[in-house]
Amino acid sequence: MTETVYDVIIIGGGPAGLTAALYTSRAKLKTLVLDKSSTAGAMAYASLIENYPGIEKPLPGKDLLEIFRKQASHFGAEIVEAQVIGGSFAGEVKEVFTMTAGYKGKAVIVATGSMGRKASIKGEAEFLGRGVSYCAICDAAFFKDRTVCVLGDSEEAVKEAGVLTRFAATTYLISPSQKLKVPDDHPALSIPNLKVILGRSVTAIEGGDTVERVRLKDSQGAEDVIDLEGVFVYLWGSKPVTDFLQGALETSEEECVVTSARMETSLPGVFAAGDVTCTEVRQVIIAAANGAMAALSAEKHIFGKKKIKYDWHK
Amino acid sequence: MTETVYDVIIIGGGPAGLTAALYTSRAKLKTLVLDKSSTAGAMAYASLIENYPGIEKPLPGKDLLEIFRKQASHFGAEIVEAQVIGGSFAGEVKEVFTMTAGYKGKAVIVATGSMGRKASIKGEAEFLGRGVSYCAICDAAFFKDRTVCVLGDSEEAVKEAGVLTRFAATTYLISPSQKLKVPDDHPALSIPNLKVILGRSVTAIEGGDTVERVRLKDSQGAEDVIDLEGVFVYLWGSKPVTDFLQGALETSEEECVVTSARMETSLPGVFAAGDVTCTEVRQVIIAAANGAMAALSAEKHIFGKKKIKYDWHK
Repeated sequence: MTETVYDVIIIGGGPAGLTAALYTSRAKLKTLVLDKSSTAGAMAYASLIENYPGIEKPLPGKDLLEIFRKQASHFGAEIVEAQVIGGSFAGEVKEVFTMTAGYKGKAVIVATGSMGRKASIKGEAEFLGRGVSYCAICDAAFFKDRTVCVLGDSEEAVKEAGVLTRFAATTYLISPSQKLKVPDDHPALSIPNLKVILGRSVTAIEGGDTVERVRLKDSQGAEDVIDLEGVFVYLWGSKPVTDFLQGALETSEEECVVTSARMETSLPGVFAAGDVTCTEVRQVIIAAANGAMAALSAEKHIFGKKKIKYDWHK
Repeated sequence: MTETVYDVIIIGGGPAGLTAALYTSRAKLKTLVLDKSSTAGAMAYASLIENYPGIEKPLPGKDLLEIFRKQASHFGAEIVEAQVIGGSFAGEVKEVFTMTAGYKGKAVIVATGSMGRKASIKGEAEFLGRGVSYCAICDAAFFKDRTVCVLGDSEEAVKEAGVLTRFAATTYLISPSQKLKVPDDHPALSIPNLKVILGRSVTAIEGGDTVERVRLKDSQGAEDVIDLEGVFVYLWGSKPVTDFLQGALETSEEECVVTSARMETSLPGVFAAGDVTCTEVRQVIIAAANGAMAALSAEKHIFGKKKIKYDWHK
């Protein structure tokens, strides 16, 4: 455990964490960002982002993330590549632990995002960003007049398939189960260019530079092939990364961190932002705004206490 | 009244309105933006923005706004320069009126922002962006080790003066009244480099290229001069622009539009985003995120109704 006490420790180096760091460091708060990996996370994996306001042309997610990172560093945020494994969040001074070090801070912002399931279909990892996507809202517009499929049977999968029909010529909804988890009269299911295939699993995603086809198998082992250009994977959904909190913060049934509009969690001095929270939609712009709000709340938390000593200005 | 029925009519062309337009037009919704003026509004007036995540270098607000505008246009949003003077918002098809035309839409997003008071101090308009600012959170970092003043006596003025003390060498809080509207033990008031001046009004802001001094007068007419580089005006605060709504939407005591987390207003199909809403903080990133959320809610409102006809895809 180092003796330095940071003003703010931010766990996570995605859009929420880095925007929080930009705000706190620009406000002259001593800021540490603990980032598991600068090349991991939903934004880093986004092949091309065109719906983030303020960018002059579509950018790979990792390039936009690099701009966020440079802004935070520019204002003095210290960014350390390390995975947080635990912490002590309840006290006035909080402690955060990685495998090799411990850090103290007056406020903590949890911005660890949401982890997609591990790529488990043959070709899924290989074609990520080249036809495989985990976000229809983000990427549907890239598949105008193409053929795509959505893998899954959840309400989210059905809804996202509905979004895709407005862009793609044909959208297959391929469900591993024999029954979708939505009422039979769900509006998406009556869309003419949506084709539902039940009881089949995708065994492989194949192609050249980009996706060209998927291989399917039914429960009897019968095989089939569909030629298409896009595969949207909504199997099991993604899960907020909260394991390192060990129950310290209130979470919902979906395991997301519950926050107020000011991004306060159930513990004073601990804030959360981005996809780890119980957010309505997972979008870079919304995660970033959460980060800014969490930073302003952390700042208020720190200075609200300092009734006597205002000596940080020198 | 033209016969075209837009999917979404967005009132306001600031960061909230243009982000909403980017999202709705990218989702292939027929989108109209009615913007009073492309060179007016809080963002257009910001001399330099450096705390918006995703920009490679600090930008004048109007330049960043121009990027937002181009993105919305690129995806097909129609942007018309016209001031909205009224409308009929309750029906299934809403109507919006300007001085010269009427427009119909299935959903409306109100993003008219918040109007700063009219510049009324001699030199205030002239030095806007050259020493005069309306946002300490935005601009404090530009006044490191300088001398600045805050004009006002509200809680917001006192709080923002507290923020400025962390950057500026000396911050004067100049109150036109003899008593600040905060308790005497407000923590900001004990900050050593904050100097409070009561019962004086600033009669002129003067300088060369940038602000160099302010002239003060007390109630007896005695004059004084302070040399300084920054003037943060917090007189009377700013007011959400809602007059054209003529009471159609629920507003709070502060006259801001009340919304849910999904940016729904009190009327179905009418959404609001940005500084016109009852927001905690006025920042570009937060207005933009509001706009994205309002757009997704408008999209849901429109498609949630279309249970039978999904023929917009051709």
